[in-house]
Amino acid sequence: MEKYSERLKKFNNVYLNGTRITDLPTEPAFSGSIKAIERYYDLQNENPDIHCFLDNQRHPSPISLMIPKTIEDLRKKRKSYKSIADISFGMLGRTPDFINAALASLCAHSEFLGKDRYTNYSNNAIQYYKYVKENNLFIGHGSINPQIDRSIPLGKQQNEFAGVHVIDHDTNGIRVSGAKMIVTLAPIADELLIFNMPGLKPGDEKYAVAFALPVNSSGVKIICRKTTVKPGLSNFDHPLSNSFDEMDAYLLLNQVYIPWERVFVFKNIERSNQFFDKSFIRHHTGHQDVVRAISKAELLTGIAIKLARMLKLDNFINIQEKLGDLTSSIELLKASILLSEETAQVSHQGIITPNINTIQAIRYHFPKMYAKMVQHIQSMTAGSMLATPHYQDFISENREYLMQSLSTGELDALERTQLLNLAWDVTGDSFGQRQLVYEYYHAGDPMRIAANHYLSYDKKEMLDMVNQVFNIKENIKI
Amino acid sequence: MEKYSERLKKFNNVYLNGTRITDLPTEPAFSGSIKAIERYYDLQNENPDIHCFLDNQRHPSPISLMIPKTIEDLRKKRKSYKSIADISFGMLGRTPDFINAALASLCAHSEFLGKDRYTNYSNNAIQYYKYVKENNLFIGHGSINPQIDRSIPLGKQQNEFAGVHVIDHDTNGIRVSGAKMIVTLAPIADELLIFNMPGLKPGDEKYAVAFALPVNSSGVKIICRKTTVKPGLSNFDHPLSNSFDEMDAYLLLNQVYIPWERVFVFKNIERSNQFFDKSFIRHHTGHQDVVRAISKAELLTGIAIKLARMLKLDNFINIQEKLGDLTSSIELLKASILLSEETAQVSHQGIITPNINTIQAIRYHFPKMYAKMVQHIQSMTAGSMLATPHYQDFISENREYLMQSLSTGELDALERTQLLNLAWDVTGDSFGQRQLVYEYYHAGDPMRIAANHYLSYDKKEMLDMVNQVFNIKENIKI
Amino acid sequence: MEKYSERLKKFNNVYLNGTRITDLPTEPAFSGSIKAIERYYDLQNENPDIHCFLDNQRHPSPISLMIPKTIEDLRKKRKSYKSIADISFGMLGRTPDFINAALASLCAHSEFLGKDRYTNYSNNAIQYYKYVKENNLFIGHGSINPQIDRSIPLGKQQNEFAGVHVIDHDTNGIRVSGAKMIVTLAPIADELLIFNMPGLKPGDEKYAVAFALPVNSSGVKIICRKTTVKPGLSNFDHPLSNSFDEMDAYLLLNQVYIPWERVFVFKNIERSNQFFDKSFIRHHTGHQDVVRAISKAELLTGIAIKLARMLKLDNFINIQEKLGDLTSSIELLKASILLSEETAQVSHQGIITPNINTIQAIRYHFPKMYAKMVQHIQSMTAGSMLATPHYQDFISENREYLMQSLSTGELDALERTQLLNLAWDVTGDSFGQRQLVYEYYHAGDPMRIAANHYLSYDKKEMLDMVNQVFNIKENIKI
Amino acid sequence: MEKYSERLKKFNNVYLNGTRITDLPTEPAFSGSIKAIERYYDLQNENPDIHCFLDNQRHPSPISLMIPKTIEDLRKKRKSYKSIADISFGMLGRTPDFINAALASLCAHSEFLGKDRYTNYSNNAIQYYKYVKENNLFIGHGSINPQIDRSIPLGKQQNEFAGVHVIDHDTNGIRVSGAKMIVTLAPIADELLIFNMPGLKPGDEKYAVAFALPVNSSGVKIICRKTTVKPGLSNFDHPLSNSFDEMDAYLLLNQVYIPWERVFVFKNIERSNQFFDKSFIRHHTGHQDVVRAISKAELLTGIAIKLARMLKLDNFINIQEKLGDLTSSIELLKASILLSEETAQVSHQGIITPNINTIQAIRYHFPKMYAKMVQHIQSMTAGSMLATPHYQDFISENREYLMQSLSTGELDALERTQLLNLAWDVTGDSFGQRQLVYEYYHAGDPMRIAANHYLSYDKKEMLDMVNQVFNIKENIKI
Repeated sequence: MEKYSERLKKFNNVYLNGTRITDLPTEPAFSGSIKAIERYYDLQNENPDIHCFLDNQRHPSPISLMIPKTIEDLRKKRKSYKSIADISFGMLGRTPDFINAALASLCAHSEFLGKDRYTNYSNNAIQYYKYVKENNLFIGHGSINPQIDRSIPLGKQQNEFAGVHVIDHDTNGIRVSGAKMIVTLAPIADELLIFNMPGLKPGDEKYAVAFALPVNSSGVKIICRKTTVKPGLSNFDHPLSNSFDEMDAYLLLNQVYIPWERVFVFKNIERSNQFFDKSFIRHHTGHQDVVRAISKAELLTGIAIKLARMLKLDNFINIQEKLGDLTSSIELLKASILLSEETAQVSHQGIITPNINTIQAIRYHFPKMYAKMVQHIQSMTAGSMLATPHYQDFISENREYLMQSLSTGELDALERTQLLNLAWDVTGDSFGQRQLVYEYYHAGDPMRIAANHYLSYDKKEMLDMVNQVFNIKENIKI
Repeated sequence: MEKYSERLKKFNNVYLNGTRITDLPTEPAFSGSIKAIERYYDLQNENPDIHCFLDNQRHPSPISLMIPKTIEDLRKKRKSYKSIADISFGMLGRTPDFINAALASLCAHSEFLGKDRYTNYSNNAIQYYKYVKENNLFIGHGSINPQIDRSIPLGKQQNEFAGVHVIDHDTNGIRVSGAKMIVTLAPIADELLIFNMPGLKPGDEKYAVAFALPVNSSGVKIICRKTTVKPGLSNFDHPLSNSFDEMDAYLLLNQVYIPWERVFVFKNIERSNQFFDKSFIRHHTGHQDVVRAISKAELLTGIAIKLARMLKLDNFINIQEKLGDLTSSIELLKASILLSEETAQVSHQGIITPNINTIQAIRYHFPKMYAKMVQHIQSMTAGSMLATPHYQDFISENREYLMQSLSTGELDALERTQLLNLAWDVTGDSFGQRQLVYEYYHAGDPMRIAANHYLSYDKKEMLDMVNQVFNIKENIKI
Repeated sequence: MEKYSERLKKFNNVYLNGTRITDLPTEPAFSGSIKAIERYYDLQNENPDIHCFLDNQRHPSPISLMIPKTIEDLRKKRKSYKSIADISFGMLGRTPDFINAALASLCAHSEFLGKDRYTNYSNNAIQYYKYVKENNLFIGHGSINPQIDRSIPLGKQQNEFAGVHVIDHDTNGIRVSGAKMIVTLAPIADELLIFNMPGLKPGDEKYAVAFALPVNSSGVKIICRKTTVKPGLSNFDHPLSNSFDEMDAYLLLNQVYIPWERVFVFKNIERSNQFFDKSFIRHHTGHQDVVRAISKAELLTGIAIKLARMLKLDNFINIQEKLGDLTSSIELLKASILLSEETAQVSHQGIITPNINTIQAIRYHFPKMYAKMVQHIQSMTAGSMLATPHYQDFISENREYLMQSLSTGELDALERTQLLNLAWDVTGDSFGQRQLVYEYYHAGDPMRIAANHYLSYDKKEMLDMVNQVFNIKENIKI
Repeated sequence: MEKYSERLKKFNNVYLNGTRITDLPTEPAFSGSIKAIERYYDLQNENPDIHCFLDNQRHPSPISLMIPKTIEDLRKKRKSYKSIADISFGMLGRTPDFINAALASLCAHSEFLGKDRYTNYSNNAIQYYKYVKENNLFIGHGSINPQIDRSIPLGKQQNEFAGVHVIDHDTNGIRVSGAKMIVTLAPIADELLIFNMPGLKPGDEKYAVAFALPVNSSGVKIICRKTTVKPGLSNFDHPLSNSFDEMDAYLLLNQVYIPWERVFVFKNIERSNQFFDKSFIRHHTGHQDVVRAISKAELLTGIAIKLARMLKLDNFINIQEKLGDLTSSIELLKASILLSEETAQVSHQGIITPNINTIQAIRYHFPKMYAKMVQHIQSMTAGSMLATPHYQDFISENREYLMQSLSTGELDALERTQLLNLAWDVTGDSFGQRQLVYEYYHAGDPMRIAANHYLSYDKKEMLDMVNQVFNIKENIKI
């Protein structure tokens, strides 16, 4: 197998700013993320103890692909997830370990996919897992259908791009068309796993599919959103947004042919609706996801603390409270990850799965914690983030003026400016706001997350308590 | 040793509503809490596996007094704390296990108390622990000084009741006067542990004491706040407030004599300031305290769910979100208790101590969670809690009218009214609001809890991350 | 006409705690409110310039009954409303001026009520207005139907008390049975105006009525909720709750006969649904209501300020911010009342009506402001409100101890305790919480208030602005 | 006088991205704002009734420069302010009318500036007002000193740029050096008014100056922050940020000579500290400022409504509530502006001044309202704002795919994308976040605004109310 960046060079169906990109690794909008993924691969060589496991053939593979059997296995995976997240300070959410965790779980629980006269879906899932493992690929995924008029059922939509649907099939495979939106990191992944979130209804049969395909397949187009990378500005001005723009894209499929061995669900509404949950993909990707969130929380809390110190605010009790709000939130986060592992459950296949109730609890509370981090950073700096000049001003004729006028007691003008730039990057720049929106919505609408938490949580003990109150011996007879 | 309620009958220095109470167990303001404490003792007989441990002499004692050596020991103590909390649904915070946890820790870490020409304070702590254990006593505590003009140092206060201070001493003991405020459950405890929270300054020497004394000592007066128990109303009207009023009281000491063997700190500011922290009392009582909080959270969440169902609101997604906010908060709470145990540290004495950073994280966030529980219950019922008649209306000539007019589809008028009464009791009654205020302030001002969390938390990794961002290879040279 | 309290003495159908009350003015649960209403009548004699107007016959009547023709008239009414609200510091919401404002408006807009073969409803409204004016009565109102299973339409309810409905009628009048809930101050009003809020549906005809009746009518029962007045406690302990409990009650009607001249709507769903809005009752009672809210806001802000000063907190900037949050909220409130008057509209009858959009804006925001007032008071006092002894302790043998131990620098123990008691009364006592719940829900669910504000607000200009943005001359052609 | 844009062409001391700009009107970072200011001048010709007043010489001048004598005058000024704000939808805060309002007030109240042996400061203010009026100039202002180590008094700072300070003076004028930060719109104003906010201390004499100078003066440098204008992107992508970036800049003064007739305060700490308040500049600029805020609130509310409709969310009650929260907030805003005018006070000079307490109340609450607007927009769109492609994608080979896949029921792909782009521009783009930060901090730290509101508000009535509660006739004697 070629090196990751070599593989990317062959891509010719990625569009950015209305232009087809022919050399992804040199395009500024992608080069930062590509470097981060390269670093992901490097880590496997540098720290195989953390990042790899040996399969039956004693072949080392990324540990995110390990099918976990014990709590200890989950802890090992967590350690690797965290180290991978640290590459981008948690700003890249869909690194390869995300779908790797999904594929391991899908493989282990593939039985429910079953088989029919066309193919053996269950076996396809197992073989695809092996293929990804052997080639150490980067798999992205597309699951969100474009926003269309929700009052019309999917199956009755006239819009050709309401979702991904089957056109026809033959003995070798199926032909699909349609679209998925917000396919994150799609332009720089090797392949994509395409499936639906639960919610399909009778009549939506042709949309009820799940499959995998190479990004570079014929008939595929990847149309990117606008990048947050700023031409003409430096890492000094935008320490993160110029390095870690996690691209989101429209995925357009136009008569794309998928061989049967890459098809996991075919015109089967029940299977499609079970795909995310019964495979325990939700649980294992959720585990990776909340571990990643810690990196982000740590960075933002670190920035808040550094700012408080630089601005000499950290002696004020109300600022200390804000910072303590953040450090204590991190503690709740870490605690919840621990609980999700300690109360993990072993399925009849012998596979262990982290506690989804705990993971979803984090997912409901974390966006609010993260929003507070953003808000506290903004409120501490007040307007001063708005006042920083361009890096070229520091190498212009005005350098000396700026070096003097922008320095404070302890920090020189460059250090001070760079820290303010970083604070703005994660809170005020499109990059930072995209990160905030991502935290709020990437795992679903928080309102629904909470609603489902209530619905699926074990409430027996709590309700019993209410009855116990009523059973307190009455001093009266009514 | 006599039975607990027998012991209480001898008390003659408790004042309520301006009157000296001569038979505590029959006074309605206390009888509910006394019953709960009796239940605490019963549990030791009913479930010794959970509630007792065997000491060196194979004598069973309450497990809250066990000096823990392993994480497993902490888990055992947690189980007992939770079961005790369930007696009162967490509404009684200062049950005997609270100070028991403190005494075990003080005994284990007593070395720092030292000795001087008067007595061996360290040994006194050990002996007191044994005494409490052998007699299975209920020890309360008083640590908060009355609110006085804070601009004058304690040592210079003219007010005789600014705190508890030494009048004189002789070879047998010391003589103290003064006051402590909000001494919770003081009227129904056997003895009290008196000490100061940290913060004494040079000049405050005579206030720098810690000791234990029987509640019924000569010179002691216990003046209670107004009770939430309502004469003429029933458990039907007030399911909790008539049963679990956790009395707070002023403790007045007037020339009270304390023998040296009950003195732990004497005119020693450093020792007084270390008393809470260096003894790890803070950590072990904190552990009991946050475990207790779960009972309360479960009850209120149970009430919220029952209300939502009764009012047929639980099909609305926005109500489901509110309920999920509560269930997911409970999950964070449970997670944090687990983390506080899993990251407990073993001291050089071989004693294990739960992670105070995690405990304090809960203590900062729990009051906000609890306030949301109160708020969600109030908002779901809207005004209907205000409309419930007195229990005697249900046994009056109007009974039939009420039974018909107050019933809803599924619930009859009595069930419905009782649930609304309970909802009001924990949110709108003085009882419920006292519980809310207790959760906010019993462990200190949340602002300071957060501030101290920030100050004491290990921030190195977070700050390193910020530096790593700055080390991202620059594409420019400034 | 007899004096108000004389009239009340004849009531014999009010039930409290399961007992029929035979002398309302001496019953502690009512005596405070009755005194406040007596004060309302006294003000008309003491300050007729503010509280009265002269009708065509030059007869002075309460100005709340004046049919306003100019903005100046609204300002005059506002002045009287405020002065009446100040009697109870805004704690009594349904003082006579509330329904007076409604009756004046109903009279002025009575045309829509029409007439039919039974009676002339329009004329009935006019005559009733005159009757109330001539006798200077106190009219309460009942509009909320008991909470029942909402999945069954009103007209199909088996429950006899689902609402007030017509049993039969003859040439002299109608016979009604049923119930209304949370009929505030019903036990101490002369008469009640009974009507429905909008929302009746075809099939609910027999519920579609509006009429007036004396509280003391045959077949009427008033069943009170539990009182907040505390037997054995004083105004020192409970400065407000023992004086201004605004009683809410169930109103039960059992075959009550209403003469046609008191009937305003009869089995007419359209008219019943219009009753509140098309009469502009909503607007004029809303005006009184938001003016009253200012008294309450001022008292709570005053308490917060006094506490901050007593506790020497008002030098801290974060406490100052909280207090400024309150003072600036009062300013928004006053501003909105002014705007509701300045943008009042004159109907074709020449009657002026305050701007309901502004009034509803206040009603959405005021509960949140009020909740903040409650919260700020609670957070400033921390736990100290929980520590105050009973007034009898201050006249007991312990008086001297308490006088010394509870005094602070400037305030003596009694002043300090009384202020803390007041703070608790408006925030922690059932009374204070009932006031909070009242502010949230007495004008309808805030969620619906906001929703209706959006639906009824003039949005044209705002939407035009968005289009203007899109019309900014493009530098590109798409 | 030349036309505004002609005047700007002469500027040669504005730096952007390290480069000196030689033709401001053609530089994209400025061209949008310059067009808006041109529009400001155009309005005076198009609508003189609204935008102009006639002075003693019957010469028409911008009404923002009128010295108001009556409430009606304030209303007229408000009308013009609003119309000017509408040019940029409130996104430009420092349009010429802002400082015009200040200069009119300074002129009217100039007496306090006094005179000394060097010059007549009072007369200088009057003459400068006339000069600006006659030439219809655009005056910006600089008042914020660079953030430096605040533990060192200004007068002892080694940093040459700690503020603007006097170097020396002679019979013709004074020589100053130093810096001001966040000088908004400085690059495109004709002149700047330089002064200090209150807070100078003895020892800071050389910093205690106020004066005016042409932007293009010798020794002046304007160093801009990074622009939000995106090269290569269109108004379609960024409807506001590409048109209304309100530039903030560092102002560096290096030995700049100011003639005495432009000096208003010279080495006079008392005068410098009074400059903002005693001139009533605070009040009149505040009036303009809060009127402008309405435009912004209207646009954002309009966007929120349009989005809700496009996404078919506006039938959900919880979304309706959010929208009603916004419409009702606008109502409070409008009300407060009315109150600030209706309670305006006339000074002994016959000048009327809007009520600063009301204006500051808005300024405390508006940032929170605005933040909610931003938040509601973001939460309604969830992630969909992240998915919009570049405008060039719509004119690329993929146009047809996008037109189909991005259209919804009613809106075509272009309309939908443009609305989402606008939503992102005002909430997620650096532009939108800069606007949010501006609203929070441009009038000072909200914490201090609230604190000062408390300190300066008339609290007598509120405190009297508390005393009245205590005077309620006691039923007991303590």
